Amino acid sequence: MPVGTQGAVKALTPRDLDDVGASIILGNTYHLMLRPGDELVARRGGLHKFIGWNKPILTDSGGYQVFSLSERRKIKENGVEFRSHLDGSAHLLTPESAVDIQANLGSDIAMVLDECPALPSTAEVIDKSLEMTARWAGRGRERFFDRWKNSPGPLPQLQFGIVQGGTFPELRAKSAELTVSIGFDGYALGGLSVGEPNEVMYDVVDATTPRLPADHARYLMGVGTPIDLVECVARGIDMFDCVMPTRNARNGQLFTSEGPLNIKNAPYSEDDGPADPNCSCYTCRNFSRAYLHHLFRAKEMTAATLNTLHNLSFYLDTMQRIREAIAFGRFEDFRQSFHRTFSRRALIS
Amino acid sequence: MPVGTQGAVKALTPRDLDDVGASIILGNTYHLMLRPGDELVARRGGLHKFIGWNKPILTDSGGYQVFSLSERRKIKENGVEFRSHLDGSAHLLTPESAVDIQANLGSDIAMVLDECPALPSTAEVIDKSLEMTARWAGRGRERFFDRWKNSPGPLPQLQFGIVQGGTFPELRAKSAELTVSIGFDGYALGGLSVGEPNEVMYDVVDATTPRLPADHARYLMGVGTPIDLVECVARGIDMFDCVMPTRNARNGQLFTSEGPLNIKNAPYSEDDGPADPNCSCYTCRNFSRAYLHHLFRAKEMTAATLNTLHNLSFYLDTMQRIREAIAFGRFEDFRQSFHRTFSRRALIS
Repeated sequence: MPVGTQGAVKALTPRDLDDVGASIILGNTYHLMLRPGDELVARRGGLHKFIGWNKPILTDSGGYQVFSLSERRKIKENGVEFRSHLDGSAHLLTPESAVDIQANLGSDIAMVLDECPALPSTAEVIDKSLEMTARWAGRGRERFFDRWKNSPGPLPQLQFGIVQGGTFPELRAKSAELTVSIGFDGYALGGLSVGEPNEVMYDVVDATTPRLPADHARYLMGVGTPIDLVECVARGIDMFDCVMPTRNARNGQLFTSEGPLNIKNAPYSEDDGPADPNCSCYTCRNFSRAYLHHLFRAKEMTAATLNTLHNLSFYLDTMQRIREAIAFGRFEDFRQSFHRTFSRRALIS
Repeated sequence: MPVGTQGAVKALTPRDLDDVGASIILGNTYHLMLRPGDELVARRGGLHKFIGWNKPILTDSGGYQVFSLSERRKIKENGVEFRSHLDGSAHLLTPESAVDIQANLGSDIAMVLDECPALPSTAEVIDKSLEMTARWAGRGRERFFDRWKNSPGPLPQLQFGIVQGGTFPELRAKSAELTVSIGFDGYALGGLSVGEPNEVMYDVVDATTPRLPADHARYLMGVGTPIDLVECVARGIDMFDCVMPTRNARNGQLFTSEGPLNIKNAPYSEDDGPADPNCSCYTCRNFSRAYLHHLFRAKEMTAATLNTLHNLSFYLDTMQRIREAIAFGRFEDFRQSFHRTFSRRALIS
């Protein structure tokens, strides 16, 4: 899922997103509740209508950003008190209000409010935290059903639970059990990709996914590199979101089938080839590395647009190729081939 | 002509330009000769190929930007010595090198190097200046023919002369006569829209266009507001370039059929209507003023893209409507109707 923090995937328009093949995007509840405000969005007819995007939207609960405010927030059993980074105004985010805000936004998939403890933490701290996350999940699920109980036909939203538990496999298992026992439309793994080594994250995913129902979507939040996508699909993950393709594009890093490249590097100034010879996106069909290098050096906004178009195409194409490989029973071949051809390191450093 | 200073119309891609109906864009020789360099562009196969734009491009001579460097340039009969604003490197721009650089860029219409004296200046200063401009025009024309003398078939570029003369009608007449006597493929009016009142500019245009051949394009450089377009077409102008639609878009000013509006103003925060109810551009078809207000307030790059798409659509649609009105013999009606409906002032201040 491309990340559209404030109601837009940075540097792109919805038709650009259609063009790169995005079928769902993510919106950040924390940002949207503060500006323009979830009630204003509701008065506009919901996020889809407001931002001109008619395919699915997943909204996070707002918790992750609130917890990262550190000095500006206080966590209690009832919820999180915090001050806006925009104007210092005081707010309270509870499991119930997180449901209400996302109902106002009108996303297709809403996430429950969870606690994201800082890593590393002791098992005791993580255990207490995941227990509160489970209690919050129960409250959030109740509010969700209560909120939509008079809605005719199928519910207008899905709601996903979130498994926590730090990097302790047994605590992940406990959190998964508590969350699954409440029963959600899908299950996410939260609190990963926050600085731990890749292999640790892979082990946690390995230990968790078998405890989540196979007929419900499994979503790994905030992940990751192209190799993370392949490795975590191998471990049972279906969905991802990450700012990496969009943010790195704005910083001049392009993902290619051979590995990442930094377009600002001098050797690209006279390189007439496309960003990725194996890519058929708008950027690769029409522009050379030399031109992308020039636009980036000249600080043209068009650089951000063209780089983002390419990186999202690369990510979404990778997921598409993974789906096809699975459908044809060739995923393991694909995985090995991907490791052989995709370098973690920049092509020219 | 939308302005693509550094090889891109800011915040847009070439397909966006196609979408708004741009049939020609302008590139700035000063910027391109310094970065990425005209010889690098020539090695890439020329500007069209480099920037992925296959419709016409007009390049200015570079003079206008060089003269605005003030402290960093020295004007002599041979040409202008200046230092780059990027790295302080020393350069010499002559009537001949301006031709060569634009030949390297491979634009469809090249402009001769002219001197743009600061206004206000005395008639004596302006007179001397326009005489040097005429001598430079002669040198530029000679170099142009020399450059292309071995080119088979029709010349790959057109070259336009530039009429100077400040705000003195008789000096404009003299400059026009000198320039026309050299003979160019089209004629521009330079040195206007540099701070003089609108009515003064209109009078100068009035005094000049009758002295330019009616069967050659007349181009008013660096102009202007929507009303300037209508008023100067009424006075015989065919072509314009201006950063106003693109720059103002990035600052949140949208041009509409009723006048300009500043999208950041609070009343637009809950306005569900399109930027301009009489516009059918991508932005107006898909997004509300409320959303554009939010994107601008949130400093999203997408705001620049959507606002620029609209403003360029408005400008290019205005020119299209002018052409149609002329073709149907209704231009005077159109002009009066435009004055009745288009306010110079912002709709909400």
